[in-house]
Parts: sequence; C-alpha cells; structure tokens
Amino acid sequence: MADITTCPPLTRESVRAAHERIKPYIHLTPVLTNRTLDDIASTPQSAEALRSTQFEGEEPASPKIRFFFKCENLQRVGAFKVRGAFHALTRLREVKGREGLKKGVITHSSGNHAQALSLAARTFRIPAHIVMPTISTPSKIAATRSYGAHIHFSGSTSSEREAAVATVLASDAQGATLVPPYDHPDIMLGQGTMALELEAQVHGLLVERRVHAELQGQTPVAAAEKEEDVGSGALDAVITPCGGGGMLSGVATALAGTGTKIFGAEPEFEGADDAKRGVERRERIESVKSLTIADGLRTPLGVHTWEVISDEEKVQGLYSVSEEQIKAAMRLVLERMKVVVEPSAVVGLAVCLFNEEFRKMVETEAGDEGWNVGVVLSGGNTTVDAISKLFGADASEKEKERQEGVMSMGGGKVAENIAG
Amino acid sequence: MADITTCPPLTRESVRAAHERIKPYIHLTPVLTNRTLDDIASTPQSAEALRSTQFEGEEPASPKIRFFFKCENLQRVGAFKVRGAFHALTRLREVKGREGLKKGVITHSSGNHAQALSLAARTFRIPAHIVMPTISTPSKIAATRSYGAHIHFSGSTSSEREAAVATVLASDAQGATLVPPYDHPDIMLGQGTMALELEAQVHGLLVERRVHAELQGQTPVAAAEKEEDVGSGALDAVITPCGGGGMLSGVATALAGTGTKIFGAEPEFEGADDAKRGVERRERIESVKSLTIADGLRTPLGVHTWEVISDEEKVQGLYSVSEEQIKAAMRLVLERMKVVVEPSAVVGLAVCLFNEEFRKMVETEAGDEGWNVGVVLSGGNTTVDAISKLFGADASEKEKERQEGVMSMGGGKVAENIAG
Repeated sequence: MADITTCPPLTRESVRAAHERIKPYIHLTPVLTNRTLDDIASTPQSAEALRSTQFEGEEPASPKIRFFFKCENLQRVGAFKVRGAFHALTRLREVKGREGLKKGVITHSSGNHAQALSLAARTFRIPAHIVMPTISTPSKIAATRSYGAHIHFSGSTSSEREAAVATVLASDAQGATLVPPYDHPDIMLGQGTMALELEAQVHGLLVERRVHAELQGQTPVAAAEKEEDVGSGALDAVITPCGGGGMLSGVATALAGTGTKIFGAEPEFEGADDAKRGVERRERIESVKSLTIADGLRTPLGVHTWEVISDEEKVQGLYSVSEEQIKAAMRLVLERMKVVVEPSAVVGLAVCLFNEEFRKMVETEAGDEGWNVGVVLSGGNTTVDAISKLFGADASEKEKERQEGVMSMGGGKVAENIAG
Repeated sequence: MADITTCPPLTRESVRAAHERIKPYIHLTPVLTNRTLDDIASTPQSAEALRSTQFEGEEPASPKIRFFFKCENLQRVGAFKVRGAFHALTRLREVKGREGLKKGVITHSSGNHAQALSLAARTFRIPAHIVMPTISTPSKIAATRSYGAHIHFSGSTSSEREAAVATVLASDAQGATLVPPYDHPDIMLGQGTMALELEAQVHGLLVERRVHAELQGQTPVAAAEKEEDVGSGALDAVITPCGGGGMLSGVATALAGTGTKIFGAEPEFEGADDAKRGVERRERIESVKSLTIADGLRTPLGVHTWEVISDEEKVQGLYSVSEEQIKAAMRLVLERMKVVVEPSAVVGLAVCLFNEEFRKMVETEAGDEGWNVGVVLSGGNTTVDAISKLFGADASEKEKERQEGVMSMGGGKVAENIAG
C-alpha cells in the first residue's frame, strides 16, 4: 500500500480528488426510491415486535423516513469494494510509478475485496495475488480466478492467512505491494466517493419531485417544499453497514461539515457489533469471531477506521440488528425493490425499520418533517442457492410468520420503484 | 373497453400517441447491459447441451450478441402491464368521458394485470372489480387488494371466470367497463410504448460507448463504429416473452418499418408455445392448458394479437425454450445482473442463450458484426419463497449440474452491470 506518509488528509476535498481518480473505472450506480419501504419505515412497529426488548410496553416510535438507496450492488464486481481498490492502485501508481508497481499487488480476502482488487490489477495490467482460505466457497474462488488473479490457499484463521501472505511475498510474489481490504486512508477515501454521488443524486431527485409536485398542483413533499431544503442539507442522514469500517469512515469523511448525519449499522450476532461496543467503552475491539449471515461484516474495525468512526463529530451513532431483522430487510429489498442484495448490504435498512432506539432518535430529531435518509446497499454477491438456504422450507416457521407481520404493514399502500 | 371502432390504427404513430398519454403515470424503466451475459451468449453452446436435440453432432452456432435489457421488472407494480392498463383508462376517459367511466372497470386476472388495472383505477378515482380464482396465492390477493380493488372470487377454469364476471357485472359492478388483459388494440398500443423507450435508450448507450471508446483510443464496438449504425437501426432486434401476445404485438407495432427485427419467446412446456405452433399451421390456437413455471405465459394468443403476430412483416420469428432453460436464465439474471425477475420475464433471454435455431439464425444474419439485441425483462413479481422452491435443495441435482455448466461458460470474463 502507498506509504501512509504520502496519503492525502482525511477530508472531503481528498474524497473529491479520489473520485476524479477512479471515475473512469467505476459505475455511477443508481439511487432507487421505494414508496412501500418509506411507508413501512414511517409506520410504528407493532407492540408484538417490541416484546422482550427494553422498549416493551412503550409507545412505538413514529418516525417519518424517505429512503434513497445507493445501489452499490449494481457496482462493478457487484460491490462497493472496487472504489477502494481502484483508488489504492491509482495512488500507488502515482507514488511508485509504473515500474514500482509492476510486481503487482497482494491481499488476503475471500470476499468482495478479492474480486475488486483482481479487477483493478487486471485493468492496470499487473499481477494480483490473492490468499484465500481453502474452505472458501468454490463460486468465490472461481469468480476471483475469472479476473485473472493468482490464488494462493491458506488456513482460515487470521494468523494462518497472514503467515500465508508472508510466504507468498517471499516466493511467488516478491516485490508485490500489500493492499489491505479496509484499514488504509487510500481505501477509506476511495469508498467515500459513493457519498459524493449519493449527495448529488438525492439533490437531483428532490428537485424533480418538487417540480413534479408543482406541475400536478399538489402539495410538494415536506422536505422539498422550501428551496433551501433542496440544497446540500437535503440529505439529512446516511447509514451504511460497518464491518472493517472502510465504507463508513470514508462516507463520514466525504460528508463531514455538510450537516448530513452519519450512522453505522452492524449485526449484533455473536458480537459482530464491535464498533458500537468499542465506541461505548472508548476502546477499539480488536477481535471478532462471529458467524453472522452478514458475512462481509465479521471483521473488527482497523486502527485508521476506528479513528474516524469513534469521532462523534464524524459518526453520530452506531446501531445493531438481529439476524432475523437482516433477513426481513433482505426479503423486502428483493421482493419490493426487485434488486438482489447480499445479507451484509441490508443492515442499514434493517436498522431504519426495526431498531427502536434509532427510530425514536429519528422521531425526536426529524419531527413532523421527517428525514431524507441515504441507505447504502453495499453489495449483491449472493446466489439463488444461498437465497434458498436462507429462506427455503427449512427456514423456521416463526421467521415466516414474523415476515408476514412485517409485510402486512405495507398493506394499503402502493409499491413503487423509481429508478434514479 | 373502448369500442373497437374508436381505436386508433395499429401503427407506430399510435404507439407514440399512447406514450404521450401514459407518460405521467409510468416509470421510464432503465436499460441495463451486462458483459458476462454478452460473453455467454457469444460463446458456442457445448456439444453436451445439444445432445438429444435435432442439432446433435452439428457445430454449435457462434453468434455475436450484445444485450440491452429493458427492465420492466422495475416498472410500477413490478411489471409492464401498467402501460396497457393506464392506456386503456386514458382512452376510455376520452371516449366515455369522466361520467361514463364512474362505474369503474372490471377484469378477471390473478396476475400482474389485476394489480396494474387496480392501480390505474385508483389513480383515476374509479372502482376496480377484479375476479380472481379462489385458489390464487394469498400474496397476490393481498397485493391486488392493497391497491383498493374489490375482489370477487371464482372457480379457476376460464368458463367459471367468465361466468363470475357476468354475475358481478349484473350485481355489484353494474355499468363497469370490461378491460381485458391483452386482446384489445388499446392494451397492445400501451404495451408497445416500452419499445419506443428502449429504442431511444439503446441509441443513447451506443453513442456513449462510441464516445468512451474514442476517448480511450480503443477500437469502438463494431456496431457503434460507423455513425449511421448509431441511428434508428442501432437496435438490430428485440425479443419479448409471448403469452396472450399484448406485449409482443405492441412492440412489433411500435417498431414496424424501422428495420429492427422482432421475435417472440415462449415456454415449450405442455404446449405453451401456442403462438409458434399456430403460426406454423397458419391458424390461431385458441386454448392452452400448460402449467409452465412461466405462469404469465400460460394463455393463448387473442384475436387481435394473433393478427399482428402472425404477420411475418411484423414478427420475424417465434422460438421456445424448456423449463430448465428458463430456470438457468433466471439464475443468471439474479446472480449476474442483480435484479429480481419472475420466470416469465426471462424467456427471451433463454432463447438467446439456449435456442440453437435462434442462435444459428443470428450467426447467419448478423455475421461478424453481431447484433444489438433488446431483451424485455417483463416483470419481477416473485417472492423469496418462490425462488427457494425453484432453486432450493429439492430442485434436482441434474438441474444444478446443468447450471454449473452454464455458469462456467462465463469464466475468464468480467462480470459487469452498467446502469443505463
């Protein structure tokens, strides 16, 4: 990775510069809106849903939320990770020159970062060495190999993976540069670029809505009513999934000082909510051993991402959700928005729909006018087999009943998808 | 329905007029492209895939295909049917006046037409009466009811359904106007509007590609190389699913005289390929009893749609695919394009990928330059439960192996989604 001393500062301006660097290589992913999901989010949860929680017996929160979904599941390689990977390589090329980069790059990952780095390396015509656990699913190994990467196998613990990287660096990949999946300023700045796009796209959609409402002689939506509300403050909040924290810290950096509030979402299963717990105790949690279905979020925060995420000026809150809530959100996105998402991608939506603490906060802060909330759908790399396993006949009946409860909340309202 | 004598002629100009009428009510759905699917389509099938077919032992066809997917699965109510429904109602309002329409509309449908007509009626503030078979899935009944329709139940045969419509018209729905799902010029013209959008969107994408290729100093894609190829002839062919034929006949009408070739795709299972068989014997087949997984395509052509579809000046060919091929195409769209489609929606793609007769024809007609093929993804109304049933553990192992064969064809190439 580019030497840390050469890195641009973690500022909005640096994210802008990162965006200019990577624009030729990435897709400007669409922003979708969906009235059904807005309605579900803006309807109080049932008393039943709050049973056995700290909110049992309280009046359920009644926030007003308008969603803007940033579809990074439609990004190249099916996930936001290409932003960081391409930024890392463009920066490395600037710092090391073409010659210094010709030995290629190396990383250990079994997920979206592996594919993203492989694509970026192929684009730059340099080798990519990817260390993957032997137990990785064949489809992920095949996908990574399809981008022309050299695959090296390792055990699955982090020490085994790191040892394998050292071995490969000393043999096949001498002179290759390590590109970590999230804990580096260049990666964070790269991931942050999605926030600049989201901000501009939401602005455009709100202007369209206002014009449309005026043409129809109807009352415009509250947030678009006044000209100034359609300015940079139009995006009231953004929530992103948080695993290693590259995306959340990048988005927080991109939008720092704009007035947009930034939130992170984590699975609570088996302690995968390490960022939230770390911030509460004011100390980074360095190890996570969770097998949450949100498999992209099983990692702890890194040193650099922790610096940003634990800064309450930059990230205003962290919230977690259960495995059932993640599945319910995933079902809604597939069935109502008609786009394919992996479980990790919907954790932010799940917080907005089901985390009562978050919902109470929005009700209090946003009041009657409500909030325009940007929700990052971070990736779509799943398979019909995985979907079948998650939702098939052997998924518990209880889950199904719960889902039906959730779905019925959308009754009486129109299902709509608006492509941005 | 508007009296047939008042209907505009079935011309491109009439489709343009229909588009102006319905534009305020529908989404301009995106057109997606996908390099992986282009690569799969442009790679010959394996000898194995052709075993036990009439093409066994022949050299597999090697067509060159660039896809442009018109995403009507992202349309309002999740399917193209809103186009015809809104056109029918705007035309009825013109012909009958507001007063003449105040008793509302009636139809029998358990599918997307029911939801589309209910939404259109609600938008026009008139009642919608929907006759549905008692055995309809609860989720479809609930969805239709959620648009404010009055649901009436019937038996599931077509004579039982028609009898129920007569009963309802004589009681609850006196004075209501029948809006059939496909066999009426106003419906056909409405569905045809998607073709005008697709034509313009493909033109825009091809211009972008050419500009991009020139900026990069690369060889532009063949079809965009010459300025004239980016004109109206840039869309070489369009293929749509064909059930009752409303969409196929509308698209054929919209593009008549433009040089774009029009093809229809059907499931072959249990005789659902009635349009193809009818055209072969030069006589409309009036009854179909198929339980194909493509449940939107279980109906025979109507009288009006037959007129267009059997005209070889307007529709250049009809092709059919197996249930397994439909599932394989559905898997590819979900996993590679990351959008949710129902089985009926992917029948056109399945023809392009797996129908050897179609592929040989493209190879011959398109030559080295290949074809830009518009493929209509007609709807996305499925559920994770239905996906699980189709692809879950109890789906046969043979199917799975077949799929893996298909998937491996994409190896070595880049997976990409480009939002249009």
